[in-house]
Amino acid sequence: MVKSEKIGSYKVGKNVEIGKNVTIDKTASIGNNVIIGDGVYLGRNVVIKDDVIIKNNVMIEDNATIGYDNLTKKKEIYEEYPTIIGENALIRTNTVIYKSCKIGKDSWVNHNTILRENTEVGDNCTIGNLVMCEGYTKIGNQVAIHSLSGLGGNMIIEDKVFIATNLVTANGRRPTYLRNMPYIKDEGPIIRYGARIGISVILLPEIEIGREALVASGAIVTKNVPPFSIVMGVPAKVVGIVPDDERL
Amino acid sequence: MVKSEKIGSYKVGKNVEIGKNVTIDKTASIGNNVIIGDGVYLGRNVVIKDDVIIKNNVMIEDNATIGYDNLTKKKEIYEEYPTIIGENALIRTNTVIYKSCKIGKDSWVNHNTILRENTEVGDNCTIGNLVMCEGYTKIGNQVAIHSLSGLGGNMIIEDKVFIATNLVTANGRRPTYLRNMPYIKDEGPIIRYGARIGISVILLPEIEIGREALVASGAIVTKNVPPFSIVMGVPAKVVGIVPDDERL
Amino acid sequence: MVKSEKIGSYKVGKNVEIGKNVTIDKTASIGNNVIIGDGVYLGRNVVIKDDVIIKNNVMIEDNATIGYDNLTKKKEIYEEYPTIIGENALIRTNTVIYKSCKIGKDSWVNHNTILRENTEVGDNCTIGNLVMCEGYTKIGNQVAIHSLSGLGGNMIIEDKVFIATNLVTANGRRPTYLRNMPYIKDEGPIIRYGARIGISVILLPEIEIGREALVASGAIVTKNVPPFSIVMGVPAKVVGIVPDDERL
Repeated sequence: MVKSEKIGSYKVGKNVEIGKNVTIDKTASIGNNVIIGDGVYLGRNVVIKDDVIIKNNVMIEDNATIGYDNLTKKKEIYEEYPTIIGENALIRTNTVIYKSCKIGKDSWVNHNTILRENTEVGDNCTIGNLVMCEGYTKIGNQVAIHSLSGLGGNMIIEDKVFIATNLVTANGRRPTYLRNMPYIKDEGPIIRYGARIGISVILLPEIEIGREALVASGAIVTKNVPPFSIVMGVPAKVVGIVPDDERL
Repeated sequence: MVKSEKIGSYKVGKNVEIGKNVTIDKTASIGNNVIIGDGVYLGRNVVIKDDVIIKNNVMIEDNATIGYDNLTKKKEIYEEYPTIIGENALIRTNTVIYKSCKIGKDSWVNHNTILRENTEVGDNCTIGNLVMCEGYTKIGNQVAIHSLSGLGGNMIIEDKVFIATNLVTANGRRPTYLRNMPYIKDEGPIIRYGARIGISVILLPEIEIGREALVASGAIVTKNVPPFSIVMGVPAKVVGIVPDDERL
Repeated sequence: MVKSEKIGSYKVGKNVEIGKNVTIDKTASIGNNVIIGDGVYLGRNVVIKDDVIIKNNVMIEDNATIGYDNLTKKKEIYEEYPTIIGENALIRTNTVIYKSCKIGKDSWVNHNTILRENTEVGDNCTIGNLVMCEGYTKIGNQVAIHSLSGLGGNMIIEDKVFIATNLVTANGRRPTYLRNMPYIKDEGPIIRYGARIGISVILLPEIEIGREALVASGAIVTKNVPPFSIVMGVPAKVVGIVPDDERL
């Protein structure tokens, strides 16, 4: 490991450890209390904020920000951890990962995506482009969330869930004027193991999508979906059962 | 105030005035005829174009562009003003605010959002991440517009409106081939005081969402919504009245 | 033409030819085997990767990436060409155009948009802000695709098609766990000459939107739409015929 004082022309804070075979663009910036593993790549204008751990062979592309810390609310309920990017993870251009997020190993977060505080992504996941996750959300392993999805926060997404483009989820039954109110931790929906969600689906809060259920494109899901069922429509109704040969 | 000639290593145009206790990253760029108030922060690669007024204690984060001026059409109808960012406003990373926009005091515009020309945002507003506003739109005070919303332009949004994730609005009854046609200023919808809009709602042009009305998630609104009514469905129909204890 | 060795302070690779009256910001970066025509503008932090041809009078704005090459799958089926940006094209800030894309002359690609590999855009097109195209898609001439649209890939969009905000298309009947499976080239929908698509429409895979058909806002299109017909609803049904005076 190399102490931060020995680093070249990029900006670097205090208490920084950097591994071997690391490539850091001279325009990158590294904050305080940062650990960077072996073989890491940090592209142009990458900003690593304070209290970040970047494991071996991570690739962080141009203009991405890791450990973003300009939190403007929720301070009272916010749980603070180091931000962790797992081995071999790929963070593509312009993406912002807030502080206290955790990205699992071999996971990709694509371009122009925002993951707010306390978003936890498992291993072997793909988070698409132009995705917004409001945070306080736990995503399992081998999950795919496609582009232009907006996750309202306070969700649980279990392993092997597949989410197509433009899923939108809510985490409050009645919209409210958040800037004036005490922060209430509403619950987003829960998506169980291996469930599959088509394009442009809407999930209301507090509902549960059962194990390996299939939600058809364009469905508005207003209540729980039983395991292995196929739902469709506005509002979504059960129209069938996932056949055996499509089960995990 | 400090004359622009005295500024350090960042790029700065003519006729620039800069207040006290200002932090400007050396990679930032400032155009001509710019006023920057006290306590302003301009992050890495921030671009301030010509004719911009940035009031006290504004924070503009990395890669944001203010007063963006590459307008490629609508020149004949375009009304030109200075671009103004109000006191204490926060503009997050990668956001582009076009020329002749006005952002009110204490308002936030989140990551990767585009506000086109002549968008006026009031005080104490929150504009989400990955939002697109086509411009020529007036947004009141204390308005929340959540992420992934696409506002078609020529809209009025009054005070205390709450818009959840992925609202999309239209401003023409029939889609047309704009690049070949004279520009017609179609009217987008009007959203009255205190109305609340659920996730993934669609609003057609020229309609009015009445005062404190509540539009359920996934609704397609094709005609006017009376004040205080609750509408739902495809197309949206009145299904109830907002109870007294939820009114402002 | 000027050999790359003669270039100023920006980064430049091998085998680069640069035309006359070119403006290249000193923070830009140019890869190997690149041809840049006359009158080209490359903004701040623009990255031109390897094997890119930029024709005369192209404008590429700040933080855009052209010829992006971090492909992580599909290698076996991927067809590789030079990335080409046609005369007078405008690529706005933060946009990423993958390798082997082709953008026609006089076309614009707006802010924060992602076009994946083998996306071909014709002449005089407008691609909106915050658009995602998964690639392997051919877009004709004079096509408008508005903001926040998510094109699932493997699509054909013919000339003079108009697509309003937030179209989402699918390219597989059943969602699957792509990271574990052999890549199957599912077919996205085909949109024929002059068709018009309203806001927040959903198109399922393999269907065809007929010539000059009109799809109403919010429709979920599950089967072929005949030429010149008007469809509406969930699922979309024919409700009329496009009148003569609206035909091309």
